[in-house]
Amino acid sequence: MGAGLFPCSRKRHMASDRFKKQMGFVVEMDKLKRILRQTILTDRSRQETSAEHSWHLGVMALILSEYAESEVDLLRVLKMVLIHDLVEIDAGDTYCYDQVETQDQAEREEKAADRLFGLLPEDQTQELRGLWEEFEARKTAEARFAAALDRLQPILQNYHTEGRMWKKNRISRDQVVARNQPIEDGSPALWDYVFHLLDDAVKKGMFPR
Amino acid sequence: MGAGLFPCSRKRHMASDRFKKQMGFVVEMDKLKRILRQTILTDRSRQETSAEHSWHLGVMALILSEYAESEVDLLRVLKMVLIHDLVEIDAGDTYCYDQVETQDQAEREEKAADRLFGLLPEDQTQELRGLWEEFEARKTAEARFAAALDRLQPILQNYHTEGRMWKKNRISRDQVVARNQPIEDGSPALWDYVFHLLDDAVKKGMFPR
Repeated sequence: MGAGLFPCSRKRHMASDRFKKQMGFVVEMDKLKRILRQTILTDRSRQETSAEHSWHLGVMALILSEYAESEVDLLRVLKMVLIHDLVEIDAGDTYCYDQVETQDQAEREEKAADRLFGLLPEDQTQELRGLWEEFEARKTAEARFAAALDRLQPILQNYHTEGRMWKKNRISRDQVVARNQPIEDGSPALWDYVFHLLDDAVKKGMFPR
Repeated sequence: MGAGLFPCSRKRHMASDRFKKQMGFVVEMDKLKRILRQTILTDRSRQETSAEHSWHLGVMALILSEYAESEVDLLRVLKMVLIHDLVEIDAGDTYCYDQVETQDQAEREEKAADRLFGLLPEDQTQELRGLWEEFEARKTAEARFAAALDRLQPILQNYHTEGRMWKKNRISRDQVVARNQPIEDGSPALWDYVFHLLDDAVKKGMFPR
């Protein structure tokens, strides 16, 4: 199809620095599908990827927002869960129970945020980096709810695989409770549910002895 | 932790039919991570899953909504892209260039929608099924833009892997143009970009001869 079919103005965006940066970012995002988490699929066939995890949180936000501690702007929650793990493209997934890896996690992730969000045009760099920092700080209702979902999801995956990764990594029920306390700030109702699951998990021998 | 620590009212939701249905749906969603698409990751290591694809569309919607044909409600677009492939959990991924499989696709997907959206409480069944039907019908600006992203994303993956799946499945440039025409309705700007990519793909020998 020749260029003559389109008015000039319609094609101008393609040559713009803005469009090139945006498409470069979109293609770079594919790399989040390479990051493996310490969580397995419910059919136990393999570890899930950070891209799959992020999608799962998006669906959870759609279904569970009525359980947020206070009313949330769902669009803001969705934006946060979609981008909350992008920094793992450079920084890798840090297993939340790994005390060595978590030591320099913040530094590695800051550097990753500089590079990755910096691929975008300035206004979008600002917006997405702002959302990521908001998520990390857990000070707004939206960030707290997003963080609650981020912690609930792997608990569900563990519970529905008879605690496979808890056993493998020798995680105790007390460690799960201590680590996931932020769920309570974002959603007391989901935090209660976590206790219900953990009680049952103990009964069923899902934690290492 | 004993039940006495929480006021009774706070825990009541857990016993409700509504909450059980919602958590059942959330866990069922994990199965979308098992569905493989006819698209590979840019490092060519494997096919991507429908969950990863859906997440990628969400990020694309965040970044590219300014190129929608008319102004879109981003929340509605995000909801649609997150749930647009859920029916594949039962119906499988239908390769868009497969004429045999696409014959009974609609019927298989309707049945899948009945079961999967039906797992939710009635109000959420209505909402999500409505969004899925809206996406499929491509009559609103949001559905058209979501559909444009859904088609652009595999073209990007193919282009950035030297046309691996176009070659493997013997897809021609003309087939790509015919199949992806709906991109133009949702985003003329992105449709122009597709032509730019396809022209370059032809030059670089990414299509089978």
